[in-house]
Formats: sequence, C-alpha cells, structure tokens
Amino acid sequence: MTQVYFDHNSTTPLLPEVYEAMRPYLLTDFGNSATGHDFGAAAKRGLENAREQVARALRCEADEVTFTGGSSEANNLAVKGTAWARHQRGRHLVHSAVEHPSVRASVAWLCEQGASATSIGVDAHGSVRTDEMVAALRDDTVLCALMLAQNEVGTVMSVAEVSAQARARGVTMLTDASQAVGKIDVDVRALDVDLCVIAAHKFYGPKGVGALYVRRGTPLVSLVHGVAHEGGRRAGTVNVAGIVGMGAAIEIVTQRIAVHRTHLLTLRQQLLDGLKKHFPDIYVSGHPHRHLPNTLHVCIPGLDSTELLRRLPHIAASNGAACHWGVTEPSHVLAAMGVSRELALGALRFSLGVGNTTEEVEQVVSEVAACAESLRATASPR
Amino acid sequence: MTQVYFDHNSTTPLLPEVYEAMRPYLLTDFGNSATGHDFGAAAKRGLENAREQVARALRCEADEVTFTGGSSEANNLAVKGTAWARHQRGRHLVHSAVEHPSVRASVAWLCEQGASATSIGVDAHGSVRTDEMVAALRDDTVLCALMLAQNEVGTVMSVAEVSAQARARGVTMLTDASQAVGKIDVDVRALDVDLCVIAAHKFYGPKGVGALYVRRGTPLVSLVHGVAHEGGRRAGTVNVAGIVGMGAAIEIVTQRIAVHRTHLLTLRQQLLDGLKKHFPDIYVSGHPHRHLPNTLHVCIPGLDSTELLRRLPHIAASNGAACHWGVTEPSHVLAAMGVSRELALGALRFSLGVGNTTEEVEQVVSEVAACAESLRATASPR
Repeated sequence: MTQVYFDHNSTTPLLPEVYEAMRPYLLTDFGNSATGHDFGAAAKRGLENAREQVARALRCEADEVTFTGGSSEANNLAVKGTAWARHQRGRHLVHSAVEHPSVRASVAWLCEQGASATSIGVDAHGSVRTDEMVAALRDDTVLCALMLAQNEVGTVMSVAEVSAQARARGVTMLTDASQAVGKIDVDVRALDVDLCVIAAHKFYGPKGVGALYVRRGTPLVSLVHGVAHEGGRRAGTVNVAGIVGMGAAIEIVTQRIAVHRTHLLTLRQQLLDGLKKHFPDIYVSGHPHRHLPNTLHVCIPGLDSTELLRRLPHIAASNGAACHWGVTEPSHVLAAMGVSRELALGALRFSLGVGNTTEEVEQVVSEVAACAESLRATASPR
Repeated sequence: MTQVYFDHNSTTPLLPEVYEAMRPYLLTDFGNSATGHDFGAAAKRGLENAREQVARALRCEADEVTFTGGSSEANNLAVKGTAWARHQRGRHLVHSAVEHPSVRASVAWLCEQGASATSIGVDAHGSVRTDEMVAALRDDTVLCALMLAQNEVGTVMSVAEVSAQARARGVTMLTDASQAVGKIDVDVRALDVDLCVIAAHKFYGPKGVGALYVRRGTPLVSLVHGVAHEGGRRAGTVNVAGIVGMGAAIEIVTQRIAVHRTHLLTLRQQLLDGLKKHFPDIYVSGHPHRHLPNTLHVCIPGLDSTELLRRLPHIAASNGAACHWGVTEPSHVLAAMGVSRELALGALRFSLGVGNTTEEVEQVVSEVAACAESLRATASPR
C-alpha cells in the first residue's frame, strides 16, 4: 500500500536543498567552531551564516539567536532560565493550558520547587482568553508563556495582544513558535516578545536542532553550563551541520511561505470536503479562520480513531491521544477546549506538508472512509 | 599549504561508514520515533538498534542508555539531576580539579544555590589523588565525579579505585568518558560507575549527540522536561539520524580499538621523537604510561604557543589557553598539575586520529620547528 505522510506537525522530511547544505559540514568542514585553526574557522563561517539566516527570518539581530539541541530544550531554557534569573522579582508564572508539554512540565517542575503558576484556559476554538491572561499577571510574575500556534488543533494565538501588556508589567514574554515557522509569519518584533522558540525539524530541517530568540537585555540563566559557547547561554560543542541545515531550511520556507500556504490551504480544503462527504456529522476542531494552513483537526463521532490509525499504519496521521496501560486517554488539549471525552476519542489530526499532493488527499479520504465503515460494521453495539 | 588535522580531542571527522549509516535516516526514514505509524516505526528501529550498539560497547543494558544532545548536556544532567534527586541525603559534591568545564560549571552553579563541593587536586602527571578523593566522601555527599581520561593532557584516571568505595558509601559515581571511547576500554561494569557520559563527535560520530549511561535504580531528575522520551529522562524529539551515527561509530571504533591503538601510539611516538630532536628541553605533560594513545601534550620552554598556532592555521592543534581581553591565560589543567605559568605558555596539544599518517607527522614536526625558530629570531629579548 502506498505510504502517505500527513504528520508534518510531528516532524518533517528534509528539503533536498537542506540536505545539500548540510553535506559539506558532515563530510569536509567538520571542525569544532570554537577552535581557531582553519578547520574551526570553516565551521564557524557555516555556523554564523546560519545564525544570520535565522535572524533574518525572525526579524531580529544575529546575536539574539541561541542555538539549542531542539525546541524542548529551548522551552526548558526559556522557562527555567527566566525563573532562575528573575527569582528576586518573584516566583509566579502564567501560561496557557494548551502549551507544549516542554513548557507545562518545566512550569510544573518549578512549582514542585516552590514556584506558583496560573494556567489560562482556552475557548471552544482553542484560543487562549487573552484578557484572562493579562488579568493574571502580577507584580511577582516573572514569565508569561503563550504559544504562537497550537500543535494539535492548529489554532493561532493572539500573542501580540498579551505581550505588550506583559512587557509593560515587567513580565518576560515567551512564545513557542515551533509550529509556526514556514506556515505563518513569525516576526519577533511584531509579536513584541522577549523569547521565541523554534525547531528545525518542524520546517524541513534536521532533528536535534532548535533555537531560542533572546531579546537583548533579557535576563536568562543557562540550562546547560560549561564552555561558554553561544554567547555563554548554552554549553556544548556546536552541532554545525545541523545548524547549517536549520539556517538553509528557515531561509527557504520563509521565501516560499506564500506559495506553500496556498498549496497547503488548497489540500486542507480538499481533505475537509472529502471527509465531510463520508462523515456528514464531522466536527472540525480549532479556530475556523485563525488556524495553521496545513493542519486539519477533526473529531468523527463514534469513531475509535486509535483503532483506525492502528489499522492504517501506512497513513501517517495522529490523534493526540495517549495510551497508558491499555486505556486510551484523549488529548488534554481537546479536554481544555471542552470537547467531550466521547467525541475526543474520534479525533484525527492531519498535518500536511509542502510535498503532499491531491492524489494523496484522495487516497487518505477513501482509505479513512473505508476503514471507518469496516470499524462500524464490526463494532459491538453500545 | 597542506592542511593537517591533529585536533581530534576537540572533534573528529565522520567515518565514511558512519555517514552512510546516517544517510537513510536523513533522507527517507525521517519519521518521529515516538509516533506509531510506519514512518515512526522505521525511525524507532534505527533508534533502538543504535541503543543496542551503544549498550554493547559500554557493556550495559539498552535501557540504561539515555541519548542527549551532547556530552555537555549529559554531564549537566548527571550532576544537576543527581543533586536534585538526592537532596534529602545532602548537598555535597566531590569532583576532580581537572573535570571538563561542563562538570565544574554545573557544580559551581549548584554551589551558588546552596550546595557545597570539594575539588580534588592532581599530581604532576595529572592523575587525581584517589585516596584524597575517597577521603573527601561524606555522609551528605551525593555525587563523586572523576573523568576517565583528561581531555587536555590525556591522563587516564583510576576511576575504579574510587567508584567501589564511593558506591559503598552510598555516593552516586559519575565518570565522564567522552575522551576515552574508541581509545581505551570503557566498560561501565568494570569501572563500577552509576553514570557514564560519552559524546559521538569524539569518536568519529556526529556532533550534537551524546549519551548518559544510567545504572538501573540510580536516582536522577531530568534536565529537559516535557514529553516522556528516553524513558522519561530527556524530553525532545529524538535526533534519530545523529543517534544512528553514534551507534555505528561506537560499534566500529570498539571493534577496531586494538588496530587503532597501535597506529595512534606509533604516530605519537614518532611525533614525540621528532619534536625532541628540535626541542631537547621539551616537557612532556600528562602521565608517562597511563595516557590516551592519541594524545601528546608538551610544553616547549620559551615558546609562545598561542602565536605559533596563529601562524600555522593550516595545522590544527590546540594549547588549552584562553585569551581574554588580549591577555593569554594558560590552561587551568596545567596550573592544577603545578606546571609554571611560563612553561604553560609554551603548551601544545596534538591529538591524533585514525586517519593521520607518518607523512603528516613529519610535516608537523618540520613546520612547528621552523616556526618556533622564526619566533625565537624575532622575539624581543626578555
């Protein structure tokens, strides 16, 4: 059976140009960018060129870009590093209820150590209630975290509405833009944030590489201590080949964003139209307009989506559910949106990519419909 | 001028077989190893095969291997993760004075937060005084860190002499084996350690990938929180291609260790003999017998090695010195060994690799001698 990859919010393949950009740094320019000889200098040129590419894409200065080993590390650095750096102001953090686990778990860990946090809920579309978020800011609040685009349902958040007020209150503003780069505009100046997290492997770059934008003057303590690489913000020999890949990828997806957007929105609509024909009672999760162009999250009433995905392993999609000890727990994001547990068990996330085609959408619609039909036929009556 | 790379303790080129092993995971098997569909399953097979390869090389079980973004991260996880996990026992740490900066800086940061530490000195050969280290262990000591091989001078430490006693005292024993893999035997059972750090890019694997051996039952808190990858020890989408490269590399260097060792020791002797002819008063740093086969660290009296390396940028070597605001500060490792500041300013570290040749050694000897001669001629009299 033909394999189809509709799971680009999980990870993406490398663009051919990205692989070509990385290759020399894997093969010949292998030096340690912190060394002064010719081998190190060649590596450093690749590293600093990539930093410029990232800075141009995010509309910031090169010295505001810190490379990390991924966006989970970058989110940990942002959350914990801010809490450690600003403990004299206070120990309160504000975040949305649908932040990425790397943000929520970092906050939870700080709370185990004496910090406190306020989690701000979302509406039925997955949008954070920005007025509630602003109202939760206190004199002892050190960080406010609001992701730019939600990874499961694709809702785009009104970050700028919060950041101006957070910053005016002296609160460090973080946005996790991991799902946004290459899909919607990510301009850290327009977003008015202090910290912004991105991940190469979400935009056709390699896994194991992330970056944290740190606005000049933002207090931050390192997560990984040691040799003073990355302006003293992150120790460890720099993954030059991976970072070069990230630089190439962000430049390409930023240049092609309009073309990609049109392509993705077209396929998304085709996919939704196709599914609607087979499932007239389909529930479309996420915001009707403010959503990522590539993400279609739906709930199909009565469907066991975990079983459907298990039966169609050649179709890569997701349902956000976690299976613990044989019990399927639906996504906490859908729960936060007020989606019933029963409906959430029929959740399916299709996240499209720039290489997907109309034919693939047709195949997925027809296979999902046939599989759901067969599941219905064999289901024991409730 | 022909470039020569004698800086393998800084980083190594990829072995061709390692690159070939990584390629499919960069190009086709690009899935997220945490996903259940075919793309994820292919990635997961690569990941778990690499884990088996690392475990076989270190003589441990696969579930005792946690992959990280490098050895600095792994050292931070080991040091801080142990301190956080064992704070009820106490807040005292013991380490050698010549540990890698990622260990020393992690300890220093914990001390800023109320921990205390005892740093154990080294003798003139760079060997840690193991009896002093054992004597420093207390009832409130949670961690003892002793590297297996010193990165600058190449001295191999008597880790097993300390670990048995540390463990008997209930102290978690960490060894940083980053410089050891592929050069000397790294058997975590024989070393009797609880934690062991390795770095792929030090043994012809890719940069940005490390691993931490965690003996079953060892208490450890995560450094990077989030989605429970890596047995809950390290969040973040797994860098499958890099890890596959690490697995391939450790398997190869472990299989070929005897051949490599002979080759490296032969070149090292040739290099030392050649340098001795030109510099009869050369001082060989590190231990006369218990040293890495690839590392030759020398001090040449009267030489300004920083200037020499600056004039020979096509020869990749190191001197361990740091230049701050135009003032050259000699290596703290040499200072700990009691090497005078003046002698330390003439330090040169040559770290050989499996691809180096006799001809390259000849070239380096003759270029270093000629350059030192010209520096002597132009030096202002003291």
